[in-house]
Amino acid sequence: MGLMRLGRVETRVLELEKAVDYYTNVMGLQETGRKDGKVYLKAWDEEDHHSLILTEADQAGLEHLAFKVRYEHELDHFEKQLEKHGLRVNRVSKGSRLGEGEAIRFILPSGHAMELYHEVERVGNGLKLNPHPVPDNLKGIAPPAIDHLLVTAEDVKEVTDLLMNVFDFHMSERIVSVDGEKLLATWLFRTNTPHDIAFITGPNGKLHHFAFSLGDWKDILQAADTLSRNDVVFDVTPTRHGITRGTTIYFFDPSGNRNEVFSGGYIPGPDFTPVTWTEDQLGRGIFYHSRELNERFSQALT
Amino acid sequence: MGLMRLGRVETRVLELEKAVDYYTNVMGLQETGRKDGKVYLKAWDEEDHHSLILTEADQAGLEHLAFKVRYEHELDHFEKQLEKHGLRVNRVSKGSRLGEGEAIRFILPSGHAMELYHEVERVGNGLKLNPHPVPDNLKGIAPPAIDHLLVTAEDVKEVTDLLMNVFDFHMSERIVSVDGEKLLATWLFRTNTPHDIAFITGPNGKLHHFAFSLGDWKDILQAADTLSRNDVVFDVTPTRHGITRGTTIYFFDPSGNRNEVFSGGYIPGPDFTPVTWTEDQLGRGIFYHSRELNERFSQALT
Amino acid sequence: MGLMRLGRVETRVLELEKAVDYYTNVMGLQETGRKDGKVYLKAWDEEDHHSLILTEADQAGLEHLAFKVRYEHELDHFEKQLEKHGLRVNRVSKGSRLGEGEAIRFILPSGHAMELYHEVERVGNGLKLNPHPVPDNLKGIAPPAIDHLLVTAEDVKEVTDLLMNVFDFHMSERIVSVDGEKLLATWLFRTNTPHDIAFITGPNGKLHHFAFSLGDWKDILQAADTLSRNDVVFDVTPTRHGITRGTTIYFFDPSGNRNEVFSGGYIPGPDFTPVTWTEDQLGRGIFYHSRELNERFSQALT
Amino acid sequence: MGLMRLGRVETRVLELEKAVDYYTNVMGLQETGRKDGKVYLKAWDEEDHHSLILTEADQAGLEHLAFKVRYEHELDHFEKQLEKHGLRVNRVSKGSRLGEGEAIRFILPSGHAMELYHEVERVGNGLKLNPHPVPDNLKGIAPPAIDHLLVTAEDVKEVTDLLMNVFDFHMSERIVSVDGEKLLATWLFRTNTPHDIAFITGPNGKLHHFAFSLGDWKDILQAADTLSRNDVVFDVTPTRHGITRGTTIYFFDPSGNRNEVFSGGYIPGPDFTPVTWTEDQLGRGIFYHSRELNERFSQALT
Repeated sequence: MGLMRLGRVETRVLELEKAVDYYTNVMGLQETGRKDGKVYLKAWDEEDHHSLILTEADQAGLEHLAFKVRYEHELDHFEKQLEKHGLRVNRVSKGSRLGEGEAIRFILPSGHAMELYHEVERVGNGLKLNPHPVPDNLKGIAPPAIDHLLVTAEDVKEVTDLLMNVFDFHMSERIVSVDGEKLLATWLFRTNTPHDIAFITGPNGKLHHFAFSLGDWKDILQAADTLSRNDVVFDVTPTRHGITRGTTIYFFDPSGNRNEVFSGGYIPGPDFTPVTWTEDQLGRGIFYHSRELNERFSQALT
Repeated sequence: MGLMRLGRVETRVLELEKAVDYYTNVMGLQETGRKDGKVYLKAWDEEDHHSLILTEADQAGLEHLAFKVRYEHELDHFEKQLEKHGLRVNRVSKGSRLGEGEAIRFILPSGHAMELYHEVERVGNGLKLNPHPVPDNLKGIAPPAIDHLLVTAEDVKEVTDLLMNVFDFHMSERIVSVDGEKLLATWLFRTNTPHDIAFITGPNGKLHHFAFSLGDWKDILQAADTLSRNDVVFDVTPTRHGITRGTTIYFFDPSGNRNEVFSGGYIPGPDFTPVTWTEDQLGRGIFYHSRELNERFSQALT
Repeated sequence: MGLMRLGRVETRVLELEKAVDYYTNVMGLQETGRKDGKVYLKAWDEEDHHSLILTEADQAGLEHLAFKVRYEHELDHFEKQLEKHGLRVNRVSKGSRLGEGEAIRFILPSGHAMELYHEVERVGNGLKLNPHPVPDNLKGIAPPAIDHLLVTAEDVKEVTDLLMNVFDFHMSERIVSVDGEKLLATWLFRTNTPHDIAFITGPNGKLHHFAFSLGDWKDILQAADTLSRNDVVFDVTPTRHGITRGTTIYFFDPSGNRNEVFSGGYIPGPDFTPVTWTEDQLGRGIFYHSRELNERFSQALT
Repeated sequence: MGLMRLGRVETRVLELEKAVDYYTNVMGLQETGRKDGKVYLKAWDEEDHHSLILTEADQAGLEHLAFKVRYEHELDHFEKQLEKHGLRVNRVSKGSRLGEGEAIRFILPSGHAMELYHEVERVGNGLKLNPHPVPDNLKGIAPPAIDHLLVTAEDVKEVTDLLMNVFDFHMSERIVSVDGEKLLATWLFRTNTPHDIAFITGPNGKLHHFAFSLGDWKDILQAADTLSRNDVVFDVTPTRHGITRGTTIYFFDPSGNRNEVFSGGYIPGPDFTPVTWTEDQLGRGIFYHSRELNERFSQALT
């Protein structure tokens, strides 16, 4: 029961074909279809039809994020729960997008459109019968799967409470003001990874980044090499996060949406005691080595 | 709701102090207490009081395995479910063991004693306020946490069905006879890791191995170096499993219980399509590089 | 002045095209030419025309090994030195093989044909002007360069003395009988790597293996994965040598010649104090983890 | 014959005990002796008495750098050669410093004091008889050895020519002005590593950094973690150099001397064709990922 994982992100891009070229040849995702001007992509180890949708627009940013639930009937359940919490819920009809069944859609208190869905076409990863560990035709960075996203919210506490109360998200980490009064950022998980979604204080509705998973620190190096070879603009070169302990690179897609590749971190369960960071230790929490935020980190949002 | 993870393993050892020396200095666990001749140990990143209990006995092997449930009241729920399935369930009183609350105990169709519990003393990992990524006083292999165990069963299907039906375990991988008729081995998960418990065909009640997690392939090398430095007997030196894709070492504690350190693998969810291996590909499935089982693999059980 | 490095190995193979397929698609070398039934190959980071020559024959094995000297005039010098030591030296005319200048050829006391040469066609690695760190069209294991070879000798001391006295090889490691009387194996270097050539006790004229270098332990894992995917027969799966400290895989080309990929080790200079291993610690010296030799190790020679 | 390697660096530090604490507990070198207010240190895998000397002074910087020659009699040879090139050469008497024999000392055209020596006390690394791969009592970063240094020169060509002509240094890489007219930086080697000494355009006599070697990219991560844990100031967090292909961290000792840990790169020989970088690609050459120099890189010199 419940939300299984971040299933997809739909992102707005400025020039569609340039974005497709980047996400297939540099990031190494696979194009699985096109419909109504949208391009659908999946990572090689994902079984569902897509985890990323690209939509051409005048401005980059997040169109919506969506979590997959285990059972179709949970859509009704969550619709009621959300309405109880005062959110207005819409239905997205089956077939509105390629490969997708029905979804419910609502606006989070942070201004982001979020959907829940169960039904989605299964295209598989081709590794289900006596498989080799990885396919042999990968190109670019080729992460196995989408991992998480981080968005900004004027009131981090409000949206965090909602997700924890309605969807049973668990908190792995948080940043608080030095006096402990104000919740400035939260990292939340439904899987046993350090985060499926995270919120930091900032303007409502904005995207900070979405991330794909990688296996280890050596993969992070090779991803950075691939990015440089392709002249991709880095936000932050390979380093470790204090928060989540994961290793990371931040960089920008051709439209300016921040991407991340992320590796490592711990394996938390619902009984995990959240890690608390005080605002004065923010730099070290975000980037454990440099121990300071670059200006771009808080200002480059889409 | 439900089983959160493999919470502890109680293992029988031949000489207690020799075992303690090995599990603390070579494996690098922390002793958290002793009571009634049992020694309690935890890995450095675990928050609960213990994940491994050592009990002196004439024969090595598994005394019991236990999964932690999210809520105390689930003990009643699962007690009823198990009884419906014809299992006899006993209560283990709070305080029977150090740091533990009440548990329910039952014998799996595979002959293994299994317990469920919620209450356990929380001792923490010391990394909850502006932490560094790891403590600085680790010794030996120092895995962050226990990961999974693998046991043998005369009827793999029977015990697999029970765990999937009663506890909502999901199957990540399985080995079947070439004709597809017989289920020879199964890998099951409740977390988003490739396995929390696994069964292979063999005598009921026996332990094949229990495993601790490591971060990456380099940690696997360093663990192997540590094992050699300490003259620990290897079963299998560093390699990759076809099944789970994880990297691994198998080796024996001083009593002959097989241990594993395990790293990597994918991040499955409840909708994961199980990977199927046919028996003729068993060697490659278990050890992807050598592509053959050594004799010890199937015969050394405790 | 002096021998710069192991420049090439010519190896006999049973079926030429099968060997070419293996060395180009699995090992990932580049074919640079063919002449008189021989196939010439180089690794991607080598600048010379070839480092491996394949010659079809009824029996696998080593046709010759060759070291490159810094200056052409050194051929005369070493010719005289070798003759002083009682070896018969022949000239190999320029153009006898593809891309090669003149060489001197002689039979080591261990029965192996060895050549010295300076002139060889330079084909480059394509990475000399504002380069990226690696080319982007590699396939297979793709080691950057040949590294060393190990051959057997009835009298290890005799051939070792010759190489140290005439060519100023330095010794990095050696195995001696427990009483210290007998020299059983030696590792020799001219570069600052742990070995360019090594000798172990065995029949004269035989090849134990030749090796290509890899960057790190993760490359070793990926090489092992590539070998398994291509059904290559392993001698030894990923592990660490005690001798040289390097990490390694041993495996066989389609003709049964043993190959190695090797990574790591120290950076010795001419003043390096050799490491001594006593015969009773041989297993641990060769394979630091398993701490025992498999039978194949000493018996599979070509 | 000739210079074997960078044998030692003597560096000026502002507060001696603070420097000793840093170089022993954070960098993880071993103190091997003190004399006349100087502290002598070696890395764990070095056999000579020291590779780093700390001297208290009012200003940080390089007191001298020294290369070890293979034979004592080479001091006379190089003395004459240097005098032929117009340099004034002094003798440093045996015993002037702890553990050292006689040395010759001269000022490079770049204003740096350089010494050559052969005799130095051998203290060993304790790993010469049936050893384990590494000692088990290491702390801090614990590099196995010193690797190279980089200094600034008003006329890079002049000092480069001298080192290549007199000492037979080979060039691995160079930066030239876009028109190719001016040599702006050079990387030179005597060993088979990408550099033992390097020069970039800048004020005469200044130190840019000296570097210790590490095994691989994972060691680089762990070094960065150790630096952060100890609040060491980073210049550049983990990344890859385009030049040398090596992976790296730059950071500052408590006196402001820049240190580096360096891993990887190729294995060049005397016939290596130098890699050329044009000034417009300098950023990418120095830091392959960020592809830009930070201001500190060219301005923080000691």
